[in-house]
Formats: sequence, structure tokens, C-alpha cells
Amino acid sequence: MNSTLETLKMRLAEVVDLQRAAALLSWEQQTYMPSGGAKARSEQLATLQGLSHRLFIADEIGGLINDLKNTSAQWDYDTDEASLLRLVERQYERERKIPSQLVAELASTTALAQEAWALARQNDDYPVFQPHLQKVIELTRQQAECFAPYENLYDPLLDKYEPGMKTSEVQMMFDGMKEELIQLVDAINSRSDEVSNTILYGEFDIEQQREFGLRVAKQFGYDLKRGRLDETLHPFCTHFSIDDVRITTRFDNEFLPSALFGTMHEVGHALYEQGISPKLDRTGMDTGVSLGVHESQSRLWENLVGRSRPFWNHYFPQLQTFFPDAFSTVTQDEFYRAINRSEPSLIRVEADEVTYNLHIIIRFELELDLLSGDLHLNDLPSAWVEKYKDYLGVAPNNDSDGVLQDIHWSIGAIGYFATYTIGNLLSVQLFDCARKEIEDLDADISQGDFDALLHWLRENIHCHGSKFTPGELVKRITGNSMDSRPYLNYLHNKYREIYKL
Amino acid sequence: MNSTLETLKMRLAEVVDLQRAAALLSWEQQTYMPSGGAKARSEQLATLQGLSHRLFIADEIGGLINDLKNTSAQWDYDTDEASLLRLVERQYERERKIPSQLVAELASTTALAQEAWALARQNDDYPVFQPHLQKVIELTRQQAECFAPYENLYDPLLDKYEPGMKTSEVQMMFDGMKEELIQLVDAINSRSDEVSNTILYGEFDIEQQREFGLRVAKQFGYDLKRGRLDETLHPFCTHFSIDDVRITTRFDNEFLPSALFGTMHEVGHALYEQGISPKLDRTGMDTGVSLGVHESQSRLWENLVGRSRPFWNHYFPQLQTFFPDAFSTVTQDEFYRAINRSEPSLIRVEADEVTYNLHIIIRFELELDLLSGDLHLNDLPSAWVEKYKDYLGVAPNNDSDGVLQDIHWSIGAIGYFATYTIGNLLSVQLFDCARKEIEDLDADISQGDFDALLHWLRENIHCHGSKFTPGELVKRITGNSMDSRPYLNYLHNKYREIYKL
Repeated sequence: MNSTLETLKMRLAEVVDLQRAAALLSWEQQTYMPSGGAKARSEQLATLQGLSHRLFIADEIGGLINDLKNTSAQWDYDTDEASLLRLVERQYERERKIPSQLVAELASTTALAQEAWALARQNDDYPVFQPHLQKVIELTRQQAECFAPYENLYDPLLDKYEPGMKTSEVQMMFDGMKEELIQLVDAINSRSDEVSNTILYGEFDIEQQREFGLRVAKQFGYDLKRGRLDETLHPFCTHFSIDDVRITTRFDNEFLPSALFGTMHEVGHALYEQGISPKLDRTGMDTGVSLGVHESQSRLWENLVGRSRPFWNHYFPQLQTFFPDAFSTVTQDEFYRAINRSEPSLIRVEADEVTYNLHIIIRFELELDLLSGDLHLNDLPSAWVEKYKDYLGVAPNNDSDGVLQDIHWSIGAIGYFATYTIGNLLSVQLFDCARKEIEDLDADISQGDFDALLHWLRENIHCHGSKFTPGELVKRITGNSMDSRPYLNYLHNKYREIYKL
Repeated sequence: MNSTLETLKMRLAEVVDLQRAAALLSWEQQTYMPSGGAKARSEQLATLQGLSHRLFIADEIGGLINDLKNTSAQWDYDTDEASLLRLVERQYERERKIPSQLVAELASTTALAQEAWALARQNDDYPVFQPHLQKVIELTRQQAECFAPYENLYDPLLDKYEPGMKTSEVQMMFDGMKEELIQLVDAINSRSDEVSNTILYGEFDIEQQREFGLRVAKQFGYDLKRGRLDETLHPFCTHFSIDDVRITTRFDNEFLPSALFGTMHEVGHALYEQGISPKLDRTGMDTGVSLGVHESQSRLWENLVGRSRPFWNHYFPQLQTFFPDAFSTVTQDEFYRAINRSEPSLIRVEADEVTYNLHIIIRFELELDLLSGDLHLNDLPSAWVEKYKDYLGVAPNNDSDGVLQDIHWSIGAIGYFATYTIGNLLSVQLFDCARKEIEDLDADISQGDFDALLHWLRENIHCHGSKFTPGELVKRITGNSMDSRPYLNYLHNKYREIYKL
């Protein structure tokens, strides 16, 4: 065994352990922590993250990487060893470029900005948030500048969440989708009477919701011996090892879809993490490769499986027995159409499959303009309103439902939003491949049998963890680059039928 | 502000954060973790503990300590600064003396020994455990030898749990108690028909138990905004900051005392941690000073308050409304006697106030003999049986109820048992002081009013955290050293009345 490699792996394992411990602290903060614990918890998270960064950027790691590069010629590109070296070198160079001083300043700035944002949103008071956002953007710009030279200042920000992706690629994709999406929204809008979703509002017992959600989760393949479901204000998936992957959900006893599709979504993320090869454990390759690829998995299970006709062929009769008062007189077709109703709205997290990506494109365009300086922060709320009018035909009456609705900018997560749409696009590209390679996938799903699908995802995506870049992974599977065409085709076909376009 | 002191505090805060994070990981392992998470959790705990040790014994800390010692003349003994310096210097010297290699060897040995112990206990198979115990004792001996010179090889082991306490002092105290306890046990035994506890067995709804336990906990002063109660196999108290102190309990729906007194016991520990001065936060002084002093707090609330007549003057009528089927026809006197029934038994954790300390003395004497080599491991089970016959008049039929009953030796916790009895003795010494200084304490307790008592404990014990050694603390409060006489007097008075001796 290569002892340099072993030493590197030992050092990386320590870093991974610290990050996993931090993830647990954060999970517990959102699930069980009493309110008094908040101050100490933030101190502990700062210590764990700071230490993890310090250990990772140590000169020793750089030395080990260099030593290995001199011997790596012997490793094939696809081996775990070669992949580890590529990943660690990329991350090491990235992390070393940002001065610790700037990391600390960003951390303290965003801690304050997040508080200001929460207050501003609560009181519909954008001016309270604006100076904080100003500082966040300034520091984010400085952070990006550490990575010069670049084609676009936005590239290093995007790269943090979607390694290897370039701003120009996203721009081209988004520009290519925008008009077509707007036209589809208009077409659907003109036939909005075709579909109602009032049957989804009512009284839905939470224990029944939990049981139904867990039944679906288990049948998808989520292993509860290596995971668990808890309740939080904002649903999420997190992991503390390949064998300990948690999901959370939020139950609304008056609206069924929140927890139902929220749980399927988080299970999609969890299946990815549970499916990573144990050989990659504690190396840093033992997690999903990017936010976009992660989102492709959650969206695949939530939308392409969970909002499909075959799925409800199997589950609607069961849902009727869980909620007889709500659904005993409802047809499966009515239910299917209700859960797929599309309508322009103000809030991203509640948006349907058609309108969702326009919410994202708006944020992406605004981020670019803010970063380049073309858009001044004084004008951000009105720019927001204008874009919503242009793209979705609706506009918020207040900033809380507008520019203040998302937490992302306050925590410095600029470059993040695009990955939601990347996930949507990839979900269809990948699902189309699965459909080609799995005989009669729809028939399986119609019988509540997801084994072949999960097996395909594990073999082609999950098991690799972060061995390959997102671009490499997509190419290996589809033979192509990322492409918005399959997603648009999927939307057209699905909504043509639902809205009789 | 002294910048050397500030730097030291920053370094210590990091170490404290790592330890608190480890405590949370351990708590979560016992409360919510799915079984699959065990392997990774143990890796993460090892990393956090190893790193915390590495950071603490860094040369830099030693340098800061030395720099401060040159300026510390200006600090009064009682100041936080002087106390911090004393504590850190003592801990630093201690931790530096143990070679990392030995720490690691002990960790891996005890991990295996613990598994072997669990198996051996399950199958009543001492020979499976014996070689592991052999190695644990050997390494423990090596560990103790790092602290030469010492009066007794056992001193450094005891010192780990009860700083400053000497083996000879414990021996003298235990020898002084033994005969008197054995006689008291005999006297009670001869009148065993006086007291029955059958009324404590029955059907006790767990939700009712929880509600009653939380009611008492809150009235004792446990702040649930800075804590919470969960369920675990073995009850414990842990903390992640002064403002986040958790307790756990175990409910038995057929036997009331388990959760009832178990909860009061853990609340006693929790009140100590919640009562530490915020000025000591993140310094390492921000936790109870020793296991013995900690146990004095849990025992005080569990036994001196919770098993007293005044307490049940207030709570028995409430308990009757919680469990009318069990208690509506029971008198308060019957109940009081039932919860205080004393009888020699085999299992330490179920022992009453009289017999409990004999269980401890047996273990303490065996540990000394094992460490000195006077007792060979082949003879340990029979030595155990002999001592139980001699001291308690009962003997186990198997090793699972004998030498294998406790986890302590398997995890290398040799020197730990004595602190249980130290806690019992201190609980009475301290409570006697409180009683002298608080006007009509029994009347308060009879009304469910614990404010004066908690205030007294906070002022005299809790707020100081680990500023003073246990010996200093006891001296400051009682004017004396630790003494078994008050405890023996307490037992005589209490049990004379209950058993009409």
C-alpha cells in the first residue's frame, strides 16, 4: 500500500469527521436543541468549520498532494486513487486561495446579514437589509477576485456549488429556455380553468401523512436503519456518513402536498448519499458531487416519479384508504391533475414544475447584474418587480414576497440558485437515459417497484460520489453535455396533456 | 485586558468546543441515531477527542501558562484568572504526562474490551472478558506509572475523577464506615417485615410518569429552555454549554421508582451545570469540578429531597391524582416507607441508600487488590462472591449478576467507583450546611418551594464550576474535610424511624 496515500487519507478522514460532526450539530440545532443552546452551538460550529479548514489547507496536505502527483501516472483516470488526487488538488487550491481573514469576515458579515434579513423580511423593510447585502456582495466580489484570471467574475462563485460549470454555459442554457417557458406559462394561463387543486386543501391527519410518507420513502429504497425522518421548519437532507443519512419534513395538516412531495424530494437526496460506494468513505469523495446533480436526484423522485401517472396508478388507491374523507369520491385523474396544477405565483418554493425555473432565471440574472455593478442595490426591488411582471405576469405588493423571500443572499450563497434549475434539467436528461436502459420502467412504477430504477441510479450516479466532475458524470451517462431540450420537451408533453393545449 | 490571557482563553475555547461537540455526538448516539450510524460515530468521536487532546497539550499552551505564571502574582487566589491558571496548569501537566501512544492503545483496547464485556455479560461467560480486563489493567497501571512519584499507584487514577483526593483518605473513610454499615444492614434485615414496597409495582402510564417527572424537575428549578428530557437505555446528564444541559431517563411502566427517582437524580446533575457562572463559559472551568461533587448534587435532590417526608407532604396528593388506581387507598406514610425500603441485593444500580455504599466499597477494595497484584484475575469472581457474602450476606449465582454487572472496568474507568460514595457522603455534609443556613428548609420543601435551597447551592457550589478543587470547595462551605460521620448519622436517624430499630 502507498504510504503517502495512506497518510493523506488519514488527514482527509480527520477533516471529513469534523465536517460530519458540524453537520450533526447543525441538524440537532434544527430538530431538538432548546432555544438556550443557540449561542454555544454557533461557537461550536465556527470552531469545527474553522478547524476543518485549517487542517485541510495545512502545508502537509499540499506536500502529500505533490508527492502523489509524482507517482500518479500509474493510476488509471477512473480509479479511486486518481479521482481522489484530482478532487483534493482542486479543493486544496481553491481553499488556499481565499485568505483566512476574508473567510472570517464573510462569516461574521453573513451572521449579521442573516439576522437583518429575517427582521427585514418580517417587517417588509428592505432598507434594513440593504447595507448588509451591500457588504455581502462586496466581500463576495473580493472572494471571487481571489480566483483571477477568470472568464467571468461569477465563475468562481458558481464553481463552488457546481464544479466546472461556467457562467457562459448557464447563460446560454437559460436564454434558450426563457422565451419558451414564458410562452408555455401563457398558454397554460389561458386555460387555467382546466385544472383545480382545491381537493388538496382540507384536513389531513399528520400521523397518517407521516405513515404514508414513510411507506413511499421505504419503497423508494430509503434505508431507515441508516437514516431517520424528523420535523423541521425548513425540510432538508443531511448526512453524517454513508450509513447515517437524515431527512426532515414539515407537515401541514391543511395542505397535503407540502409533506408528501417534500418527503419524496428529501428522500431523493438521501438515496444519493446512501448509495455512495463504501470504498469512498471518509475521503471527501463520499458525498454528492454538486448541488445540481444532487437536485437532479431529489427532483427525479419528487417530480418524474412522484408526480407521474404511473406512480399514482399504484399509490392513489392507498392514499384513498389513508384519507377517505378527502379522496373517496375523487378520481385518480382529478388527483393527478391537481398535484400538477401550474400557475404563476410569487414564491419560489411553492412554484410548480413549469414556473419554477423562471423564478430561478430571475435570480440568476439579478445576481449577475449586481455583481457586475450594472444594477445598484437601491434599484434591486424594482428590478425584481419588473422581471416578475415580464417573465411570470405577476408582481409582489411588498418586498417580503419579493426580493426578501429567500435566505440565500443573506448567507452569502451567491451562485447557488442556478443549481436548482441545473438539477431540474439534469433530472430529465438522466431519467430519459434510465427509461431507455430499463425495460418497461413505467410498468415497474405502476406496480410500486422501484428496484430497477434505484439500481440504475446507484450504478450510474450514486456509487461514484464525487469521483468525477458533474460534467464528466453527465457525459459518461448521457454521452452529451447538459441540455435544456429534454426538460422542455418533458414539460410540453406533460402539460399539453393536462391542460389540453 | 491581558493579551496572553486572552490568547490562552481563545485556545481553551476551541478545546472546550470540541469536547462539547463530542458530548453532543455521544448524546445523539444514545437518543436518536439509527443503528447504521455507529461505526462513523465512533470514528468522529475518536477524531474530536484526539484533536481536543492534541490542541490542549500543544507547546503553545504550555508557553502561555508559563508567561501567565510570571504575571499571576497580581491575581487574588479566588479570582477567575488565578483559578483558571491553576486548573489549566494542573490539567496540562497531567495530560502531557501520558504518551499519545498509550492514550491510543487504551482507546482501542477498551473499545474491544467493552464489546467483549457486553458479550460476556450476556452469556455469563467471564473467561471471554478476562483477557481483555487483563490488558485494560495492564495499560491502566502503565498510565498510573506515568505520574510517579506517588504515595499509591491508585492515586493518579482516583485523581482523574476526584482531583486532589488520595487513596489513603478514601481507604480511611471506607474502613471507618464499613462495619457500621454492615451492622445497620443486619439490624434492618432482622426487621424486614416492617416495610413493603409492593405498591410500587403495577401499571404506571408512561405519559403520566413523564408529566409528573417534568413537573418536579421544573419545580426543582431545571430550566427547560436550556435543557430537555429524552429517553435512553441508561439515564445520564450531559451538557453542550451552560445554556444547554440535557437529561435522559428510562421509563418502566410496571415499576414507578425507576424514572421517578432517576429523573430527580439527573436533574440534580443538570442544576449544577445550569448554575455555573456564565463568566466561566468556554474556559474549562465551566463544568462541575469532580464526579464526587457532581454526585453529591444528584444524590441531594434524589435522596435528601426526593425520598424525604417533607417532599411527599407536598407531592403525594399530586401523585395520587396522577395514579389513582395505584395510590388512592395508600397512605403517605406507606408510600414514604415503600420508597425507602432497604434490602441487601446483588445489583448496585438498584441498591437503596444503606446498602449502596457497600457495593462501592467492594469494588474499591477489589480494584486496589487487582492493581497491586494481590488479586489475580482468575480469582476475581470468587473474591467478588466472598465479599458480597461478607458485607451484604447475599451472593450471585452467576457472574453476570456479579463481577460482570458494571461497564466501568471494560471502559478503563478504574478509580471511578469511589466517587459514587464520595457523592453520597458529600450530599449529607452539604445538605446539613444548607439546613443550618436556610431558615426552615423542611417547611419550604413541604410546600414544594425549592428556591432557597437552589439559591444556596448555586451560591456555594454551582456558580464556582471548577474554580476550586473539590477539597477546597468542601472546606469553604463546611469548614471541614470530607467526613463520613454526617452520612452515617443521617442513615441511622432515617432508618431507625422507618424500621423502628
